[in-house]
Amino acid sequence: MKPLQRLTILGLGLIGGSLAAALKQRGLVAETLAWGRREASLARGRELGVIDGYSLDLATAVAGADLVVVATPTRTVEAVLAELGPLLQQPGQAHTLVTDVASVKGNVVAAAAALGPARSRFVPGHPIAGSERSGIAAARPDLFRGHRVILTPTEATDPAAAEWVETLWRQTGAEVVTMGVEEHDAVLAATSHLPHLLAYSLVDTLASSSRGEAVFRYAAGGFRDFTRIASSDPVMWRDIALANRRALLAALTDFNHHLAELQRAVEAGDGDHLMAVFERAKAARDRFASQMQPSATMSQE
Amino acid sequence: MKPLQRLTILGLGLIGGSLAAALKQRGLVAETLAWGRREASLARGRELGVIDGYSLDLATAVAGADLVVVATPTRTVEAVLAELGPLLQQPGQAHTLVTDVASVKGNVVAAAAALGPARSRFVPGHPIAGSERSGIAAARPDLFRGHRVILTPTEATDPAAAEWVETLWRQTGAEVVTMGVEEHDAVLAATSHLPHLLAYSLVDTLASSSRGEAVFRYAAGGFRDFTRIASSDPVMWRDIALANRRALLAALTDFNHHLAELQRAVEAGDGDHLMAVFERAKAARDRFASQMQPSATMSQE
Repeated sequence: MKPLQRLTILGLGLIGGSLAAALKQRGLVAETLAWGRREASLARGRELGVIDGYSLDLATAVAGADLVVVATPTRTVEAVLAELGPLLQQPGQAHTLVTDVASVKGNVVAAAAALGPARSRFVPGHPIAGSERSGIAAARPDLFRGHRVILTPTEATDPAAAEWVETLWRQTGAEVVTMGVEEHDAVLAATSHLPHLLAYSLVDTLASSSRGEAVFRYAAGGFRDFTRIASSDPVMWRDIALANRRALLAALTDFNHHLAELQRAVEAGDGDHLMAVFERAKAARDRFASQMQPSATMSQE
Repeated sequence: MKPLQRLTILGLGLIGGSLAAALKQRGLVAETLAWGRREASLARGRELGVIDGYSLDLATAVAGADLVVVATPTRTVEAVLAELGPLLQQPGQAHTLVTDVASVKGNVVAAAAALGPARSRFVPGHPIAGSERSGIAAARPDLFRGHRVILTPTEATDPAAAEWVETLWRQTGAEVVTMGVEEHDAVLAATSHLPHLLAYSLVDTLASSSRGEAVFRYAAGGFRDFTRIASSDPVMWRDIALANRRALLAALTDFNHHLAELQRAVEAGDGDHLMAVFERAKAARDRFASQMQPSATMSQE
């Protein structure tokens, strides 16, 4: 594909930095700028060679950009889009495309109304990749290799813009999938947001019980794996839980219903019911274990 | 310690086989016999050099044994103890000690009444170790190294017998801890049995939803780790859930209470409550991550 003349990353953390690094490594961008609230991260990004320059002023950072990637924390995406709206209507910005990397898409798509006419050039996206580490220092060009990126273009999205963003993500080694906004949020609620809620809840239940944290002394490897995601960033997951509230509650209601049935089976000593559930779950888990993505991701799913 | 003249393993799977291999490797046993229902496993154990001989007849296998280790599946321990009772009252068996390796101790201790006077020579135990693999072919002498073994002697247990079994387990490289039967079952319900129930239940909920197993395509590493224990042996976990029914239900009730609070917080958009839970959980999980046992254990916890 034709290289970008100017790429601007808003929020230079693990995801934004890794995307910048991946595109630079493949020679797909002539100049990469960044904007953010913490100058230290931006300066570090320049030191690392991930970006070529930065500004703390949004208008300066996005001026003349071919592509703007909104990679700020979930809770700030709406405010950033609102600020971005008027800037994209300035002279010389008529070609600027915008995408984002937030874990929840419904609230982002709603907020994209603030982009006004530029809304057609906004392609909502979500790379399902991450690392136990966060921040620009953890960025690496191969972060997305072999991982999925979900794009959720809406009726307002120019199909050419969506196609272009899809092609760009493919260059990072990612497998790009397109689905509806509601479908995305429901699928992620089930496979990521609900498991995080359950893991946090279980660890807090045990730690705050009368036995206290002493109980963890007797935990084995199964418990360690099961609760690994409870070590994820609380701020990020609070924001995701609230941003995807409706779909998360629907997934939780479903889960509670199944768990209550299992509870009744244990109470009744109904081994057949337990076997049926355990066998179905094992079969499903075994079938799809090989299809699941390879590296442990915690901070951004 | 003085070597055993004769060790008899009842049920030659991963755990029984690994204990036999560990004791043999350290020269702590002159002769190891085994008993089981499946001759193939016993023959394989002899081929592998883990045992020196075997019998399909329980009386023959335990005759003259210094130590009998009940390592059969959870659901058969009670029947084996009942059969063992009269044999331990035979001439020449007055010195025979008995221990077991089952994951739940309450039902085993209750069943130990069948041992009659030999009950004082029974030391209930539970090595918190395992592997994704099972069966005698997966046995290895270092399986218990660095892992915990919990012993739950009762008032009926001869303290000298408990001390002797403790010393023996230490020789395998395990760290031995003693606790009450109820305490053991409550702790294991919380850290192992409940997590298995939740993992099985979540995977089955998602797999049986309208989206079906397609949903797993978008799962990331966090989900893979969270659901790893749902690939465990359904028969073993059905038996554990039923054997530890009371403690498991108590742990589940506790968990449900906390999860309902979290659900209300999500419904109400109460970010402060979410942050408080997520932060406490992360802090507890991080503090104890380093104390948790090193290798992934699935089949026997």
